[in-house]
Amino acid sequence: MTAMIFLDYVGVILFAATGALVASRKQLDIIGFIFLATVTGTGGGTLRDLVLGVPVFWVAEPRYLLACAATALAAFFTAHLLESRYRWVLWLDAVAISAYGVFGAYKGLAETGSAVIAVLMGMTTAAVGGVIRDVLADEPSVLLRKEIYMVAAMGGAVVFVAADAAGLRLPLAAGAGFATAFGLRSGALARGWTLPAYRSRPGRDPEDSLRGDDPDTDG
Amino acid sequence: MTAMIFLDYVGVILFAATGALVASRKQLDIIGFIFLATVTGTGGGTLRDLVLGVPVFWVAEPRYLLACAATALAAFFTAHLLESRYRWVLWLDAVAISAYGVFGAYKGLAETGSAVIAVLMGMTTAAVGGVIRDVLADEPSVLLRKEIYMVAAMGGAVVFVAADAAGLRLPLAAGAGFATAFGLRSGALARGWTLPAYRSRPGRDPEDSLRGDDPDTDG
Amino acid sequence: MTAMIFLDYVGVILFAATGALVASRKQLDIIGFIFLATVTGTGGGTLRDLVLGVPVFWVAEPRYLLACAATALAAFFTAHLLESRYRWVLWLDAVAISAYGVFGAYKGLAETGSAVIAVLMGMTTAAVGGVIRDVLADEPSVLLRKEIYMVAAMGGAVVFVAADAAGLRLPLAAGAGFATAFGLRSGALARGWTLPAYRSRPGRDPEDSLRGDDPDTDG
Repeated sequence: MTAMIFLDYVGVILFAATGALVASRKQLDIIGFIFLATVTGTGGGTLRDLVLGVPVFWVAEPRYLLACAATALAAFFTAHLLESRYRWVLWLDAVAISAYGVFGAYKGLAETGSAVIAVLMGMTTAAVGGVIRDVLADEPSVLLRKEIYMVAAMGGAVVFVAADAAGLRLPLAAGAGFATAFGLRSGALARGWTLPAYRSRPGRDPEDSLRGDDPDTDG
Repeated sequence: MTAMIFLDYVGVILFAATGALVASRKQLDIIGFIFLATVTGTGGGTLRDLVLGVPVFWVAEPRYLLACAATALAAFFTAHLLESRYRWVLWLDAVAISAYGVFGAYKGLAETGSAVIAVLMGMTTAAVGGVIRDVLADEPSVLLRKEIYMVAAMGGAVVFVAADAAGLRLPLAAGAGFATAFGLRSGALARGWTLPAYRSRPGRDPEDSLRGDDPDTDG
Repeated sequence: MTAMIFLDYVGVILFAATGALVASRKQLDIIGFIFLATVTGTGGGTLRDLVLGVPVFWVAEPRYLLACAATALAAFFTAHLLESRYRWVLWLDAVAISAYGVFGAYKGLAETGSAVIAVLMGMTTAAVGGVIRDVLADEPSVLLRKEIYMVAAMGGAVVFVAADAAGLRLPLAAGAGFATAFGLRSGALARGWTLPAYRSRPGRDPEDSLRGDDPDTDG
């Protein structure tokens, strides 16, 4: 259990840190830091708990909120020391989706017993915080970046569920899932790993697309 | 009942298809296809079930997730065959909001007995999947298009609720609701149907609006 | 109790009015007005109730929906009379976040007994409606404006919780909270009040940031 609680806090706090760094990029004030850090840190887990029909984790244990606020405060006073805040956002986000993807799969599995739901819970938990952060701050969504992202969260969740089903002890299964997810995502960040795309022509502008006057493009 | 389950799957699968086509327009990888298809296909129904306080449908029955994933896979290998993917998004979305609007009204009515809530549930269920899809993919929201959209979902839900209250058998009431919604939305798409606008002057840019230096415009 | 119900309706109806005014800026049709007014008016309270695990307020009492629809109708026929709709959006939003921030804190406190959760509930309740409005309408988020915003909602919630803990009668505590929030936000709107920013350099464009070729900037 301790390993899982550790993963949970790692996910919440690092997501909160990415929210605070984005708040810094947007020159928000201290309360804006705390708000964006808190919704980024708790967003994924909140949706996970609502969907699973269990009490929302930070309502049951407000210490998570204090952890987010403390992270935001720390970032408020140190963000300027970082050479590239956006690069830090990407790397902290990489650790956070790895930790939170595994923890989401663990909680989904514990509540429903379904491996399919566990994997989707891992992916959703990992993705939602970043999506909320990017939408609120009007940043380009990390989901739409070319290098792999959801693949990493999915890989971590799948490896964790498989290792758990194979009878591995919980900390080992969680470690294997985390390593898989972080390995995939850090490869993506450091070396630009992508999945082979079957076909890759971007969509046209919606209005041009409706005019449909150019048979050579596929809209 | 069978007619309603059919409508439910039609809504989920066609919304998933629109999500996958938008993923194709954004050149996402296969996992991006599956993720965007799944959140688009299940988003509206998830919010509906959360608000109604009933178990989320795809947690109770993971087959919906597999249907979304299969749809995404099929789209991944065939999207390039379509001449205009955006046009397909609009038309599949039209069928999906018609099916899902009626099904949402049906479920809202069954759970609360209130016609007002049933209609709002139909509209919300129909709109949310597309909103999530467009926000995640940074596409212009289909809600903001000039031709009628929410009117169609509302019309379908109202006709279904009225027909059901009038004692029509469920498949007939559902068929009447679906036909109303799809008739309205396809007229909008094919002929540009709009509701008469009482007044139509666009908003100024927020900053200009605050300066307020031009008494001839209404901000 | 009556004071709290009054605050609740003030929040819902004024948020609905801001949604309708934004619908007018976007030249939506009458159903678009009703939809945007309703989701803006009910969005914050819906999330609050889901997170608290209590029945969603407008499912239990559909009169809120009718109030939103009536507000949208009124705005549809009068929005053109306003000289600056965006300015009205900001001021109505200021009253709404003040009312709804206090009411959210009240409900959070009543359900959980935790002051930390009460304050966060007040902030979330106050912020979410406007966030949904701005995202759906593709307007710049009011959260990202330079002058203080979340500070006002937080201040109102903190003062309410403290006054309530100090034994003040409910209407007085609520009035003190409302006055604090509205005082802060109206000072921000009228005089551009901001919190001192510890450091304020905007983020670079994500892609430039990743190239990291300029050691003088902090990305």
